[in-house]
Amino acid sequence: MRIQYLVPGPMRRAHPGEHDELARREKLLRGWAAPDTEVRALDSTDGPLSIESSYEDHLSVPALVQMLVAAERDDVDAVIIGCYDDPGIDALRELAQRTVVVGPAASAMHLAATIGTRFGIITVPEPASIRRYINANRLDQQLAGIGVIRSSVLTLADDVARTRADVRAAGERLIADGADVLVLGCMSLAFLDFDTELSAELGAPVINPAKVALATAELLVRTGLAPSKLAYPTPTKMRGTTSLAEFVA
Amino acid sequence: MRIQYLVPGPMRRAHPGEHDELARREKLLRGWAAPDTEVRALDSTDGPLSIESSYEDHLSVPALVQMLVAAERDDVDAVIIGCYDDPGIDALRELAQRTVVVGPAASAMHLAATIGTRFGIITVPEPASIRRYINANRLDQQLAGIGVIRSSVLTLADDVARTRADVRAAGERLIADGADVLVLGCMSLAFLDFDTELSAELGAPVINPAKVALATAELLVRTGLAPSKLAYPTPTKMRGTTSLAEFVA
Amino acid sequence: MRIQYLVPGPMRRAHPGEHDELARREKLLRGWAAPDTEVRALDSTDGPLSIESSYEDHLSVPALVQMLVAAERDDVDAVIIGCYDDPGIDALRELAQRTVVVGPAASAMHLAATIGTRFGIITVPEPASIRRYINANRLDQQLAGIGVIRSSVLTLADDVARTRADVRAAGERLIADGADVLVLGCMSLAFLDFDTELSAELGAPVINPAKVALATAELLVRTGLAPSKLAYPTPTKMRGTTSLAEFVA
Amino acid sequence: MRIQYLVPGPMRRAHPGEHDELARREKLLRGWAAPDTEVRALDSTDGPLSIESSYEDHLSVPALVQMLVAAERDDVDAVIIGCYDDPGIDALRELAQRTVVVGPAASAMHLAATIGTRFGIITVPEPASIRRYINANRLDQQLAGIGVIRSSVLTLADDVARTRADVRAAGERLIADGADVLVLGCMSLAFLDFDTELSAELGAPVINPAKVALATAELLVRTGLAPSKLAYPTPTKMRGTTSLAEFVA
Amino acid sequence: MRIQYLVPGPMRRAHPGEHDELARREKLLRGWAAPDTEVRALDSTDGPLSIESSYEDHLSVPALVQMLVAAERDDVDAVIIGCYDDPGIDALRELAQRTVVVGPAASAMHLAATIGTRFGIITVPEPASIRRYINANRLDQQLAGIGVIRSSVLTLADDVARTRADVRAAGERLIADGADVLVLGCMSLAFLDFDTELSAELGAPVINPAKVALATAELLVRTGLAPSKLAYPTPTKMRGTTSLAEFVA
Amino acid sequence: MRIQYLVPGPMRRAHPGEHDELARREKLLRGWAAPDTEVRALDSTDGPLSIESSYEDHLSVPALVQMLVAAERDDVDAVIIGCYDDPGIDALRELAQRTVVVGPAASAMHLAATIGTRFGIITVPEPASIRRYINANRLDQQLAGIGVIRSSVLTLADDVARTRADVRAAGERLIADGADVLVLGCMSLAFLDFDTELSAELGAPVINPAKVALATAELLVRTGLAPSKLAYPTPTKMRGTTSLAEFVA
Repeated sequence: MRIQYLVPGPMRRAHPGEHDELARREKLLRGWAAPDTEVRALDSTDGPLSIESSYEDHLSVPALVQMLVAAERDDVDAVIIGCYDDPGIDALRELAQRTVVVGPAASAMHLAATIGTRFGIITVPEPASIRRYINANRLDQQLAGIGVIRSSVLTLADDVARTRADVRAAGERLIADGADVLVLGCMSLAFLDFDTELSAELGAPVINPAKVALATAELLVRTGLAPSKLAYPTPTKMRGTTSLAEFVA
Repeated sequence: MRIQYLVPGPMRRAHPGEHDELARREKLLRGWAAPDTEVRALDSTDGPLSIESSYEDHLSVPALVQMLVAAERDDVDAVIIGCYDDPGIDALRELAQRTVVVGPAASAMHLAATIGTRFGIITVPEPASIRRYINANRLDQQLAGIGVIRSSVLTLADDVARTRADVRAAGERLIADGADVLVLGCMSLAFLDFDTELSAELGAPVINPAKVALATAELLVRTGLAPSKLAYPTPTKMRGTTSLAEFVA
Repeated sequence: MRIQYLVPGPMRRAHPGEHDELARREKLLRGWAAPDTEVRALDSTDGPLSIESSYEDHLSVPALVQMLVAAERDDVDAVIIGCYDDPGIDALRELAQRTVVVGPAASAMHLAATIGTRFGIITVPEPASIRRYINANRLDQQLAGIGVIRSSVLTLADDVARTRADVRAAGERLIADGADVLVLGCMSLAFLDFDTELSAELGAPVINPAKVALATAELLVRTGLAPSKLAYPTPTKMRGTTSLAEFVA
Repeated sequence: MRIQYLVPGPMRRAHPGEHDELARREKLLRGWAAPDTEVRALDSTDGPLSIESSYEDHLSVPALVQMLVAAERDDVDAVIIGCYDDPGIDALRELAQRTVVVGPAASAMHLAATIGTRFGIITVPEPASIRRYINANRLDQQLAGIGVIRSSVLTLADDVARTRADVRAAGERLIADGADVLVLGCMSLAFLDFDTELSAELGAPVINPAKVALATAELLVRTGLAPSKLAYPTPTKMRGTTSLAEFVA
Repeated sequence: MRIQYLVPGPMRRAHPGEHDELARREKLLRGWAAPDTEVRALDSTDGPLSIESSYEDHLSVPALVQMLVAAERDDVDAVIIGCYDDPGIDALRELAQRTVVVGPAASAMHLAATIGTRFGIITVPEPASIRRYINANRLDQQLAGIGVIRSSVLTLADDVARTRADVRAAGERLIADGADVLVLGCMSLAFLDFDTELSAELGAPVINPAKVALATAELLVRTGLAPSKLAYPTPTKMRGTTSLAEFVA
Repeated sequence: MRIQYLVPGPMRRAHPGEHDELARREKLLRGWAAPDTEVRALDSTDGPLSIESSYEDHLSVPALVQMLVAAERDDVDAVIIGCYDDPGIDALRELAQRTVVVGPAASAMHLAATIGTRFGIITVPEPASIRRYINANRLDQQLAGIGVIRSSVLTLADDVARTRADVRAAGERLIADGADVLVLGCMSLAFLDFDTELSAELGAPVINPAKVALATAELLVRTGLAPSKLAYPTPTKMRGTTSLAEFVA
């Protein structure tokens, strides 16, 4: 099957040359994928450099829609929204006619609920929009708390050892507050790839939303399932058009 | 005080000449306002003609942000998002530094919860995104049901008598299912201005979200309250800029 | 419009002469009201001096009912129950035939839910009955906590500086526990009129229930809405009587 | 142990002579009690003839408080509030220093939750206040529905066969809607004493709140438990008085 | 009435001779019972020595079923599952045709919800399965917290003074976290019989699940109620057999 | 990776010779698996023929535990409990030291919550225990309803066309009641393998719990995740033993 990881911003421009972050992420995704999965990581010339506010969530949607149009045209099986806020997930699922759309946050949090009783989220500021998304998914009673790493998304990778130590400390506090599963609430944290080590150190599963979103996409494609069109109906105005590409043009 | 009702699309272009829908709405708003309120209705050259999907929600946000920038520059006290889905409400509240941002849906549903026990919503298709917004507001236990008027938003006003009869029939069904308050879940329904008559006919309050959003804006400005910046924090990247206008440019 | 703030006890007798607390509160209410609102504060020769228990809640209801009878006779548009527990709100709404009945607690807490994600309440002892009222309003999942000022309602105003400092400290603790909006859970706190200053100092909205109850009454009258008679039905036995006054005599 | 069933109204005046309803109820209670329980049914010269509205709930509280004062003076072990709305339960529990206060509705609904999954309530109009009390007890997710017998409380006993048939039909509808336990939501229904027969006919437990309130009072006294004074604290002003009788005088 | 307390393991073998723990528990139960209640405590040659995991919960069910078969044969009115996890309660209620089956945990937690607002549980490790049982009973919103006594169930009685001090300290912490009622979450704690003393010391009811399960069994038998067969249906395959004994053979 | 599907009963004895149901199921599982997954279906000489009651749930646990011991000894990566009730899932997860334990019901219901808003379950009698399991997973607010196929688990496959028609009719009713995703709540329904066809016919995803449990096992193994040992702690008594096999012997 073919899966695309969609970064709704100019990641290659932000990390040029030998520090090709997009290629690095694609390589990691390939290592995590099933043998029959072909996974690609794509970025966009449009969209914000990083997504750290609801405003940037919205800014990223047009780029995601264009990438979905291309994915549907190319018969890609599933796309993963490359941001933990799952920006535009409702819109993309309404628009998609053949392609499965997966969000890292919803995938990771529902998985957390199946392997534990109460989960904690470790994120960078600000937790308020994450809290609202948890409510919209009706998972607030399973939430033990949100731990914040005081940093900027764009500098998390500058000092990996310190970021790792901050995440571990936040995880310990959340476990003390009753969490029995932890979720990394940021894709830049996810691709630092230290979740398996931290799981062992903390004695509780640490969920990497990039890995889990990929595996959830594989699960849906393999089981022949897709988001419900009763829950994400095709837009009324699109029904008279000939194609998704025509509608969003 | 000064309040603006923001239509994030080309309403004047859609309803030109003698059928100036924007002017009609502004006139209604002025009739509903307090004596010391100066209310204006504005539309945008950008944005969709109507909002009937999550995709169109996102399309409307850039127009709303530009209108917010102008409102802040002009010291407007409050702006009302002119769509029942409250598109972009989180983003606008994060960006706003002085202006109170009000959403019709959240205002109407929380008011419903204060004057009754269980509310029903009457809307045009599709109810799935409204249901998710209710969950995000944690009001799902107060929801008696959602009644759908099978029509298009753009044609609701073509046959007002029929629309009115459909709304009344939907309201009767929701009351039979346990609703004791009804909410009109669409701004085009709201501006048909038949809510007071329907309240009397149905024996239950019928909440007009346009009236209530205006009155909620007045309430917030008069009491000196605004959405919490702890819940809607200013975007990290914006903190280093000189102004909202510079940040969103 | 005409609104009455009903103190269900002998406030003028408790604060006689130059310290006319009732007149002081009426003056504040007038300052907070819209230009077309005529607001009066009334007290009662019956009822308790202050309301600090469920027993005193009940003791205050006959006085409130008599004041409602007079309000209906005089075509008052709305009455506000002058106690944060909203004593008798269900009874008064059932009895009222024309007058809108507003409770400060329900108004303030539902408003808190529209401008933030989780609210904290600052009150004087005891929080147990407030907690039950929050449950009855199904707002317990939005509650971050209740902070208690160890004082007596009747002595809050004796040392305003200390009361203010206690409220501020309680607010800081509630914010640390996750509250992003604060509610003053006592009318004697509300009329100390320091909410706007505290909002600025704490960086989170501090809701004054007196202001918000007044503004909610204005909102309901202006939008032509009233509590649902399906939720607050006229008592069966009253249906055969000629008037509210006759029924409650 | 000694238990009193408190009717907060003039039941003997309403049912005089050979039709002594109070004596009939006391006789039934004695038949239901444990051998070491001495149970009495008392009425009051004050209070409403029946309680069919929130206003009448409040009217009944002063009579209940006077009866509680007498019960505490006479070292009665527990009192039962003789109305399904549990009027004044919070106030009485706050005031009581030695006597256990039991409400039929709370007792019956929590028992329903322990012997089934979802319960239905059968009551006379109006269900809105019952629904709010269910919410305050946080049992709304266990509620399958409320079935209403269109009658007056005062005439339920005039045609017992018809009342019984109406209750049975309401029970069948609630079972079809998913209830697996039924609760009689009115004391006048309870004392018609047909719950055991209906349980057998409907194939689901039909809870008689009079029986269950009595048995819950016995349970609490026998286990040495009482309502928590942290949840129902003694009124602040009462702490300086010498006795409950002095405080409520 | 006749009630049996069922220990699903070899208690007499574990505590032989003069330290007959089973006889000690039966004696306590007799002291707690109503005068017309004949209560026996029984153990089983099968089943685990103590129940401290979900695996041991399952191991105890065959013994409980055999004891239920004997109880039904002997016309016992009610049986109490002698473990706080209520192991096998659903199975036993499905199988029982005449005998009322009571679980200590469900009885104690629902009673806690009727005499307070938020309860805390004091248990020995591990709280995760107790938390899931609370969720299954939909009582999680009434839970203030779970306090853990770091000990083994089998050694709780070796140093009663220390166990008592640990329970008291855990209770104080739970009250500080908002609990107004406490529940002893282990039968070996319950039979140390210090709940009444601790209630007085802590100023909050401390619920002994052994006492409350016994009293709940008495309540159900006296009121003629039993767990709903709609909620706990007789197994399909059993319907064609002649008896419970035949089915489980 | 190596995954085992564990049938806790004598399936081969029940379906002997040419009608080898176990082999048929294994063949289907192999067709659904990823290319690097080696999946086996095993049954047990112990355990019930089918699981249609809570009693049979418990009867199946010893067989499952023995199969888990063998799986751990053989370094199997994950085991799937071959019954929709997820019998013994807590116990198996507590006991497992290396092997991931997956339950079909929890996997299917949490996936339903990620691809829709409200799900319906189609099962054979009786729904009460499924409802309690949904509550324990805190998914009751996402449940639209449970549709029951009046049949026996053992005869579902005798007339596949009729079973299929019954499932489809139940699905249509659940969609009319608001479900946007459907879950087949029985493994014998799942292995009839008509879910993909029904998804197309009903216009809503129909989740096959066998497929989804397999894919969830693959997801967990591939992402290196396992159920939390904080949520499913190793039994206290087992900590002193040398192995799982020794402990359960």
